Amino acid sequence: MSYDLWYWPGIQGRGEFVRLFMEAADIPYRDRARQSDAQALVEDMEAREKSGGFAPYAPPYLVAKDGEDEIAIAQVAHILAWLTDRHDLGSGGPQTDLHLIQLQLTITDFVAEAHNTHHPVGGGMYYEDQKEAAATAAKGFREERIPKYFDHFETALGVNSGPFCRADGFGHVDTSLFQLVEGLRYAFPNRMAQIESDYPRIFACRDAVAELSGIAAYLQSERRIPFNEDGIFRHYPELDAQ
Amino acid sequence: MSYDLWYWPGIQGRGEFVRLFMEAADIPYRDRARQSDAQALVEDMEAREKSGGFAPYAPPYLVAKDGEDEIAIAQVAHILAWLTDRHDLGSGGPQTDLHLIQLQLTITDFVAEAHNTHHPVGGGMYYEDQKEAAATAAKGFREERIPKYFDHFETALGVNSGPFCRADGFGHVDTSLFQLVEGLRYAFPNRMAQIESDYPRIFACRDAVAELSGIAAYLQSERRIPFNEDGIFRHYPELDAQ
Repeated sequence: MSYDLWYWPGIQGRGEFVRLFMEAADIPYRDRARQSDAQALVEDMEAREKSGGFAPYAPPYLVAKDGEDEIAIAQVAHILAWLTDRHDLGSGGPQTDLHLIQLQLTITDFVAEAHNTHHPVGGGMYYEDQKEAAATAAKGFREERIPKYFDHFETALGVNSGPFCRADGFGHVDTSLFQLVEGLRYAFPNRMAQIESDYPRIFACRDAVAELSGIAAYLQSERRIPFNEDGIFRHYPELDAQ
Repeated sequence: MSYDLWYWPGIQGRGEFVRLFMEAADIPYRDRARQSDAQALVEDMEAREKSGGFAPYAPPYLVAKDGEDEIAIAQVAHILAWLTDRHDLGSGGPQTDLHLIQLQLTITDFVAEAHNTHHPVGGGMYYEDQKEAAATAAKGFREERIPKYFDHFETALGVNSGPFCRADGFGHVDTSLFQLVEGLRYAFPNRMAQIESDYPRIFACRDAVAELSGIAAYLQSERRIPFNEDGIFRHYPELDAQ
């Protein structure tokens, strides 16, 4: 069994949520576009679209090969649920495992809203051409949306004695909450400093994920590229709390 | 086994994607908030959040009861995948079933973008206070996003000889594509008329879903409430192609 992960090479982006879970779980994978370039990703996607079978709408997608057999799967929460099942990293309880996937899908929604703060009007337009709308969108995101989502995740983390959403160790929701905190700290450092004390479980989960051996090694490697202003979480100081 | 569906009573919204699949599959359910009011939904959500266990971030959510056992699940694509598994309405092939869930998640993304056309700057703000940004967002959605998504779904529908994404009959992707076409026709009638001939499979799928006995009966019932300007798909003529 081998895994190929396909995602845009120059950003953490949505691919990072898959990478972090695989690194935490010590699941080996090849980061295909990073090993060549974005053109290789575009060509792989086009070939899949033309083949008529499985095709991703957008990266990230994961290709699992076992001899001649191949499974390909896109959409972050879907990939993570599938890997969790395959590598026995769920809770084993149906309601809990369903709840974990639901939390991951809620993180997906939150990530889309984080992207909307700098591109509310159009993903294909420049930030500079939608700065005024972005300022208003970011204000609502900082003041209303972050607390509403964080309240929900803080409650979810309170089900067990901690530090993870899953009783028996880390799971896909925990590695994604880590990335959410890191991304929001990069994009909105002032706002995150204001609210950190309100969400002790979320930040304790973030710290516990950072200390997992696979994650600690990953964060020190060159595979963890820095956040930048081409990704989902962008630091535009004018969009943060002042 | 009994099913309770919880969703805001006054709109089709995201709940409609769950309703349509259950109506098509003749799965009985109680539409709880419709049978009382929105306040009952708010109270049920608050009770679930306080209970410390399962809690939805937002409706729709489905509660399946079997004697004392209860499973509750939120997020449209997640609900539909779970119902599909439970009622044996998948393909039985792992790659195909994974692909169908992936397509459903892509529909979820598309629906969020459709909502963004009239509320790009803030979901908590009035449309009237973001009309200018909405006009620009809607233009990009009409001209770039609808064709990009539709190209993808048209390809997916081409895998079988039709009219559904699943070889053996309708599935959750098909009922959701029906709703997507209906919603977009309501919100963007001019634009949809322009592109209809480019996507014969999508519109044939829409028509085939409309003819399913469960759907035909549902569409004539009072349970199918009209689209309106509180929902996801809103008809603001200034946002459509002219």
